[in-house]
Amino acid sequence: MRIRFYNGKTLRFAPQMRVTEDEIWVEDARISYCGPARADAPAFDRQIDLRGDLLMPGFKNAHTHTAMTFLRSMADDMPLDRWLSEQVWPNEARLTDEAVYTFTKLGVMEYLSSGITACFDMYVRNDAFSAACIDAGFRAVLCSGFNDFDRDVEQLERDFLKYNRRHELVSFMLGIHGEYTTSRARLEHVAALAEKHQAPCFTHLSETRAEVDGCLARYGLTPPRLLDELGLFRYGGGGFHCVHMSEEDIRLFAERRLWAVTCPASNLKLSSGVAPIEKLQKAGVSLAIGTDGAASNNALDMFREMYLMSVLQKLVCGDAAAGSAEVVLRAACVGGARAMGLDDCDDLAPGKKADLIVIDLQRPNMQPIHNVSGNLVYAGSKENVRLTMVNGKILYENGEFFVGEAPETIYEQANAFVRGLRA
Amino acid sequence: MRIRFYNGKTLRFAPQMRVTEDEIWVEDARISYCGPARADAPAFDRQIDLRGDLLMPGFKNAHTHTAMTFLRSMADDMPLDRWLSEQVWPNEARLTDEAVYTFTKLGVMEYLSSGITACFDMYVRNDAFSAACIDAGFRAVLCSGFNDFDRDVEQLERDFLKYNRRHELVSFMLGIHGEYTTSRARLEHVAALAEKHQAPCFTHLSETRAEVDGCLARYGLTPPRLLDELGLFRYGGGGFHCVHMSEEDIRLFAERRLWAVTCPASNLKLSSGVAPIEKLQKAGVSLAIGTDGAASNNALDMFREMYLMSVLQKLVCGDAAAGSAEVVLRAACVGGARAMGLDDCDDLAPGKKADLIVIDLQRPNMQPIHNVSGNLVYAGSKENVRLTMVNGKILYENGEFFVGEAPETIYEQANAFVRGLRA
Repeated sequence: MRIRFYNGKTLRFAPQMRVTEDEIWVEDARISYCGPARADAPAFDRQIDLRGDLLMPGFKNAHTHTAMTFLRSMADDMPLDRWLSEQVWPNEARLTDEAVYTFTKLGVMEYLSSGITACFDMYVRNDAFSAACIDAGFRAVLCSGFNDFDRDVEQLERDFLKYNRRHELVSFMLGIHGEYTTSRARLEHVAALAEKHQAPCFTHLSETRAEVDGCLARYGLTPPRLLDELGLFRYGGGGFHCVHMSEEDIRLFAERRLWAVTCPASNLKLSSGVAPIEKLQKAGVSLAIGTDGAASNNALDMFREMYLMSVLQKLVCGDAAAGSAEVVLRAACVGGARAMGLDDCDDLAPGKKADLIVIDLQRPNMQPIHNVSGNLVYAGSKENVRLTMVNGKILYENGEFFVGEAPETIYEQANAFVRGLRA
Repeated sequence: MRIRFYNGKTLRFAPQMRVTEDEIWVEDARISYCGPARADAPAFDRQIDLRGDLLMPGFKNAHTHTAMTFLRSMADDMPLDRWLSEQVWPNEARLTDEAVYTFTKLGVMEYLSSGITACFDMYVRNDAFSAACIDAGFRAVLCSGFNDFDRDVEQLERDFLKYNRRHELVSFMLGIHGEYTTSRARLEHVAALAEKHQAPCFTHLSETRAEVDGCLARYGLTPPRLLDELGLFRYGGGGFHCVHMSEEDIRLFAERRLWAVTCPASNLKLSSGVAPIEKLQKAGVSLAIGTDGAASNNALDMFREMYLMSVLQKLVCGDAAAGSAEVVLRAACVGGARAMGLDDCDDLAPGKKADLIVIDLQRPNMQPIHNVSGNLVYAGSKENVRLTMVNGKILYENGEFFVGEAPETIYEQANAFVRGLRA
């Protein structure tokens, strides 16, 4: 399958961020050419006239719990601890494989409508989750949420081996749910696996003040310091949230080349705080962006996250120059891909995976066109996503989804499950 | 012209916020019926099957500078004082009537795509602005931005009389740009006009800490206290922004029944702060929401403002229960209308103006449907606006605009003007 995108703009990141008038050719799952129009072009199966619109790498959602779409707007306006114990955990106990499949499909549709081409998912029932992603044609990296409630400690390694060989769209990274839900013995178990497989490790990290204080009380160390000392970060990885980071934590992240995955919307909604993005960035820490789950957001919308990542820095730094559009776009497109081990999904270039999106610039919120990156970060919205392609396949175009099932079927199944929860 | 909306849900505010399965009939500019389907229905010119979607009152943008769309993404990442003196004022001096007309049309299109059915606009070249709104079929309330730079002091009263008689879609309210740009003599002039016409008065108010400190230094009073003592609020009105409000300011607003119009996105982007919405609301202050101009936002998107109005309260109050969805929706739909003197545009009820929107619930971000108000505030986006009707006319439907000109023409004119600015 050969597809040509022409007559538009491209946003590319390497060697530096720039907008060109190049065309892009896709051959099967990969980009085969980026450059000026050529007389010796091959025959194409489809030629897409961009009509001046913008082609760019897809956004990567570097922290989420996709199937938590089942809790959207069901547990609003509660602090993190009560939200977990009163709403999330009791309802999660009632999830089935079928429900996780349906709500993952629903989440994937929402990703596609927001220009997201891959997600880094930590949740339950990995078989159902990965089946939904594969059936939809969506790219997913699983991250284990290992903790004290896991009954079989050996399952983690079996999952690591299984999901890393399963399908080209699916891979798996070691992860723990968090220091506060995982005993020292279990943390050491994961550290041994990281060492054995020379694998990075991710975790919810320093999300709330209470989490940091608890870790300090238990171990006399902040969560980043503790996990580093136990060896979980020997082969990289990083933290989801990273809101309450000390100067020393930030230095550690920079030295160890760990990823700070920021989830600004979730941190606001649960009243957790604002991550010190400006400080992290100035210290050289690598950044990526996640939506977190729909239960604490409540949207899975990278435009919202990018906007918040920028403007919240302006607020907390008291400096309108903080949180520049370029830093944010780079984290959304390039940073996310690399954090997830998807180094060939990070940019538009020959040989890279064709995980890309078309942004409709012919909408009032994108006009006039002074500054494409400013428009994207400060004014962009889901209404601007004209097309989303994953692994060379168009999964979303002009508002329509191509995910192997009719949206109406997914909505019906989702609502039927939710009615059952309330019954 | 008779239009029937059926087979969906309605969101109504009086006597209390509720979702019904009623149908709605529109006759010319007004709603003629809300209730169950009836056998004795009249003949309709058009019957719109809502297919389960949600009909609700339109959002009101209660503070904006519409034609500032010309500066979108042109002056990012600067504090308020430099942003005004280096970017806004010099470029505004180059605006023409034609440019204001074009950029107002562009802004109106963006409003429609975000479900906004009326705006409260403070800007220059009122003739061009109101012509653009009237030509588009959009409802606008002008607010004078009177200040020391106005050459003819008497113009204000002439404008007040002229625009309040001009067209059913246009009205005019007294306003000053701000205490910090208006001499005491001129403030007293406006107070005399407010008294003479028994008219409310609005102004940019307590937007930045520096503005409040300046007023305290000049007069020994906060801006709300000063303006109240001078008599500007004798017949009501209120403030745009209201970020830095003392307890006494809040009490004054409640006692005088003044409107606090919050602009959360602009306050973040310019690093001005977060308005004390929770405190204002608990004190009984009436609330409305504005986008401010596109130069400091950079979108004109009520979904963004509603979301931020809620979640920023959760952050600054350290309380995830702060900023409830109902308070926010009421401010966006009902509060805005009443602040602007549009009491017959505030709800769905027989006799009210047909200023209404249809929200597409058949999109992944609106599913499952646990809680419509939670979904709207926390997950809603421009992608969900299926139809926007102003004064009984459909101005936006399924992504298409009906504003008297082709969008392409408006985009072309907008970009041509901007190229001229940079030349």
